[in-house]
Amino acid sequence: MRSLDTLFTPRSVAILGASNDETKYGNWISVQALRMRDRRPVYLVNRRGEPVLGQPTYRSMADIQQPVDLVVITVPAAGFEAAVDDSLAAGATAIVGITSGFAELGDEGRAAQIAVARKIRAAGAVLLGPNCLGVLDTTSDLFLVSNPLPCGPVGLVSQSGNMALELSRFLADRGLGFSRFASLGNQADLCAADLIRAYAEHPGTEVIAAYCEDFQDGRAFVAAAGEAVAAGKPVVLLTVGSSTAANRAARSHTGALTSDSAVIDAACRAAGVDRVRSPREMADLVAALHRHGSKPARRVAVIADGGGHASTASDIADANGLAVEEFRPSLVAALKADLPPSAGVANPVDLAGAGEQDIASFARTIDRVLSDSDIDSVLVTGYFGGYGEYGPELAAREIATATVIAEHVHRHGKPLALHTMCSDSAAADELRRHGIGVFRVVDDAARTLGMLADHADRHPSVPQLPEAADPVRHSDYWHARELLKAGGLAFPEARLATDVVAAAEEIGYPVVLKAMGLLHKSDAGGVAIGLSDADSLSAAHEDMVARLAVSEYCVEAMADTAGGVELIVGVRRDLRFGPVLMVGLGGVFTEILKDVTFALAPVTPAEAETMLRTLKAAPLLHGARGRHPVDLTATARAVATISRIGAAHPEIAELEVNPLLATPSGCLGLDARIVLVGR
Amino acid sequence: MRSLDTLFTPRSVAILGASNDETKYGNWISVQALRMRDRRPVYLVNRRGEPVLGQPTYRSMADIQQPVDLVVITVPAAGFEAAVDDSLAAGATAIVGITSGFAELGDEGRAAQIAVARKIRAAGAVLLGPNCLGVLDTTSDLFLVSNPLPCGPVGLVSQSGNMALELSRFLADRGLGFSRFASLGNQADLCAADLIRAYAEHPGTEVIAAYCEDFQDGRAFVAAAGEAVAAGKPVVLLTVGSSTAANRAARSHTGALTSDSAVIDAACRAAGVDRVRSPREMADLVAALHRHGSKPARRVAVIADGGGHASTASDIADANGLAVEEFRPSLVAALKADLPPSAGVANPVDLAGAGEQDIASFARTIDRVLSDSDIDSVLVTGYFGGYGEYGPELAAREIATATVIAEHVHRHGKPLALHTMCSDSAAADELRRHGIGVFRVVDDAARTLGMLADHADRHPSVPQLPEAADPVRHSDYWHARELLKAGGLAFPEARLATDVVAAAEEIGYPVVLKAMGLLHKSDAGGVAIGLSDADSLSAAHEDMVARLAVSEYCVEAMADTAGGVELIVGVRRDLRFGPVLMVGLGGVFTEILKDVTFALAPVTPAEAETMLRTLKAAPLLHGARGRHPVDLTATARAVATISRIGAAHPEIAELEVNPLLATPSGCLGLDARIVLVGR
Repeated sequence: MRSLDTLFTPRSVAILGASNDETKYGNWISVQALRMRDRRPVYLVNRRGEPVLGQPTYRSMADIQQPVDLVVITVPAAGFEAAVDDSLAAGATAIVGITSGFAELGDEGRAAQIAVARKIRAAGAVLLGPNCLGVLDTTSDLFLVSNPLPCGPVGLVSQSGNMALELSRFLADRGLGFSRFASLGNQADLCAADLIRAYAEHPGTEVIAAYCEDFQDGRAFVAAAGEAVAAGKPVVLLTVGSSTAANRAARSHTGALTSDSAVIDAACRAAGVDRVRSPREMADLVAALHRHGSKPARRVAVIADGGGHASTASDIADANGLAVEEFRPSLVAALKADLPPSAGVANPVDLAGAGEQDIASFARTIDRVLSDSDIDSVLVTGYFGGYGEYGPELAAREIATATVIAEHVHRHGKPLALHTMCSDSAAADELRRHGIGVFRVVDDAARTLGMLADHADRHPSVPQLPEAADPVRHSDYWHARELLKAGGLAFPEARLATDVVAAAEEIGYPVVLKAMGLLHKSDAGGVAIGLSDADSLSAAHEDMVARLAVSEYCVEAMADTAGGVELIVGVRRDLRFGPVLMVGLGGVFTEILKDVTFALAPVTPAEAETMLRTLKAAPLLHGARGRHPVDLTATARAVATISRIGAAHPEIAELEVNPLLATPSGCLGLDARIVLVGR
Repeated sequence: MRSLDTLFTPRSVAILGASNDETKYGNWISVQALRMRDRRPVYLVNRRGEPVLGQPTYRSMADIQQPVDLVVITVPAAGFEAAVDDSLAAGATAIVGITSGFAELGDEGRAAQIAVARKIRAAGAVLLGPNCLGVLDTTSDLFLVSNPLPCGPVGLVSQSGNMALELSRFLADRGLGFSRFASLGNQADLCAADLIRAYAEHPGTEVIAAYCEDFQDGRAFVAAAGEAVAAGKPVVLLTVGSSTAANRAARSHTGALTSDSAVIDAACRAAGVDRVRSPREMADLVAALHRHGSKPARRVAVIADGGGHASTASDIADANGLAVEEFRPSLVAALKADLPPSAGVANPVDLAGAGEQDIASFARTIDRVLSDSDIDSVLVTGYFGGYGEYGPELAAREIATATVIAEHVHRHGKPLALHTMCSDSAAADELRRHGIGVFRVVDDAARTLGMLADHADRHPSVPQLPEAADPVRHSDYWHARELLKAGGLAFPEARLATDVVAAAEEIGYPVVLKAMGLLHKSDAGGVAIGLSDADSLSAAHEDMVARLAVSEYCVEAMADTAGGVELIVGVRRDLRFGPVLMVGLGGVFTEILKDVTFALAPVTPAEAETMLRTLKAAPLLHGARGRHPVDLTATARAVATISRIGAAHPEIAELEVNPLLATPSGCLGLDARIVLVGR
């Protein structure tokens, strides 16, 4: 692992391109850099040597004549390579390339940045960027970004400066800020994985947030994120690519190569990464994870001080994947004894005026539901914080109640999210001061608890790519079949034959005849099924010979598909994340209903079984509509086998078994297809 | 239609139960009521006759000796009926029942509120509540709710006081407030439909918002909302019941009977009502509808000042149902000519630093995309409003740009939503002042545009319930078949017979044999299909006679189902919304994948066709996977026929045709089922 020490804790820093022009990055970053002069030398380099921000400057790196660990380069693209040369010559081991005009403009720029990065690596240094916005480490007083950003426990990796700025504002609202921030830019050298790995080891970083358009080596990203998660540092990811338009934008922004959103989801599941859809979701989840970590949250108690809020919050909680289950009778009885007769006590709780009469009932009710082992978390919704408006005495009691609520929450160690329309009140401030999540909008509160619940339910497992097996050279059905059979997948008995009738006699009728050497043999009319005797087989064979000019045929026993479920199982190579497994039911389920699921390959049989169970059509496997359940263990094993073989053959762009027939007594491949890379 | 004039514009008002106790509603409402003394007499009634809030009071209604139009009753439940009697005796024609303790506590309370409501109606008066929180009309200075609420163009009907309070805060943030607010409470007399109808006619109300737990007469609600929408006053609905927990809560809150969420969606489609999921969504949509009305918004141009924001906003827009389509070449060329080389110009637009260099590029770009006839709306996202922080000159130019942006938006008359992380800036304020929707969170901006797009795409059509037809008395297959055949639905040829073989000879083999007089004849083994000759028919017949002791049988020609698609079409009676049509594909599609769609019955053939087209499995009807497309016109006509018959028979709780066979040459009922009400 390459050291990023001089990137985050340099002993000295130079700004190459320091400027007095207030519309230039070389100005903004110099302003920030000068804030850390007490901590380390900061050298401003300006080619005219004129004073910048009232400070003396150097005309060149060579003029500094002192050791420089880190150089920030803000000069135009034409001068970038020379600036790098000067920096390396001056002994720099970390270079931050602000300069834009590389891969984001096309192939020429991409070639240029690759060449520079190679030079930097050869010198034993690291490059952040180019086309990036700087680096920050508030734990080492390193301020090399354009804006002052709030301090805190969050390590941010971002491919967008404005996204970092927006997140910083959202986090500041939630009392949080950054331990470190690295702007990725075009990732010519250092990429997200490198930085996440560095953050995982950084004591000042407790939660990692990443905005990433291009994952570069996706498997390295998964490994790094998986290690961080395993070390107790959640990784929250915002990425793009669920829409065509976003991919169009990312290409022009950082020259990014985006992956299919379903593949990114699969990568996140493998690594245990929490994927969010917006900066707001990111801020809410980061704050909640910082507060509650991996505490379960699924089974929520909803507590409202009004019927409308009770019902609405319950619907919204449900829509966010939370379970608002009826309380056990003893809890219902305890609440009933304490609250007015019109109160709702079965989950949701509606205090129904108890707030006005006795504000402490909020705290008592929260304590009661948190004490129940069937309750994981609490969603409070309504007017808390507003009662104080009725008079100073009630205001004081409300603040005292807030303190007690916080005590209960910390004592029970279960997540609580509090929504109130009075989120600017003194009582709400008191809650925040004691580390309680306060939300102005109930949707945000419920979604955050839902995301916490998902987080706690994750079972990350980073798949290891197997050693590459001997490469396959032929892509016809017979070779695909042999490859899969050798790996352990069962197929009906078959012969590769020119005398197809003789082969069929050995196997027994009915048979299937498949012409070899065609990529899409079904579309080309190269498959004939249900051939029940020598006459029909011969006829089909003669017809294919005449039409397709194919001499080699596979004669295969015709499987009995009655009582079986046909699956499609495929492994496809994503340019960033490598082999990706897809599992779905055949026919309409995959083609029309898109009821498919993905995972990074290879998967274990247990993981394959989980995938099968998550299909919407899964009840068909379990014996819905009067069927016999299929042998799920054998099916999962077959899926895992296919994933393992796909993963072990980097020369295969696409491996598909379709159909894979799952029956009550086992699992059988009925057809298979290979597409080799570059074909 | 009953007049609600004295409810909203009473000449005089009395508060029955006026109090000095600051924890009581009789106090809070008196405080507000006294604000309108310049406008109309306000009489405070306190049974001890003591001064309240420094004002003289009356011991009883009788003591007032002046005409009183409207009485607000806040006394405990035990004294409610007497208070109503006194009010009616004093000539009141509108009564607002704050008093709680009725249907929300159970059947006894429900009976009591029904009796009181009957008495009030008999006297020609109207009752709002009981268990409500008052009434407000800012256009007539009527302040009879506990809190001061902001004025504006929004008419609110709410079954929850706190929900109204929360909405008022969200609306105030958006520069809006209420024209009228009526708290529904238990709706013993006036229900949501009555109030919506009154709001539709109220000149001061431009948009109607409703929070409703129980729709009472759902068809009246649909009719009233439909009329309001047709009159150009959008109706935005927040309701509960998408979760079991919310239904549990609504029952205990206002004794509400909730409907299935899918049925409510069907009702909203019929009426053209916009359903939202939370108070925040309600506020955003109400504000957007007030601003833009029914302008189309689907095809959106995304404009960002950073690549990350461009991509993220595009993904979020896409997720909210907006179409971020690539611009036409001439627009791309025009943008390219104006923006820096690194800008994204194909949709999304990434200004890529143009903001810093030339803030006016925001306005030019917005004008350009709004000029394109392929663009319905604009989503701006990023940092606008923040450039002013760089200095006073840029700040002034940014505000000027805001003014120009607003001019462009108003001139083009297309919706624009602007998200900025600097939503507290002077430029953002300038935009708001000119009526532009400014959002702190891009999710909210995109969702609001998406909801506007949905609103503009609605085609409401309020179905009229047909005259009740002669009631059906028998529920066996033969009668169901005859009923449906008489209505125009085709079935295979059949005979009701005891001599089944003779019947089959007339029809021709193969046939299906169905035993009559069994509710679930398939489950009971009362159906035998594919009987190809007299022997197999006789055997099946003898078996059923022996097992089921049924003497009457339907012998029916066996339809050829090959090449057909089996549908399930049913009409079920919802307690609130009456007959509801369900359409889905048979088997796994309905039972496992829940791929079904609902509409209020009856529907026209055109509406039935739309329903069929919205099914996820619709491609199967259109000829997916090598099939011939089914006769969609005939199928839609059959669905409409079933809906019409179901709607015309209030004695039928459930009418189901399953399967309804759609084929390339027509549509045929293959089985049908009736469940009579109360059976």
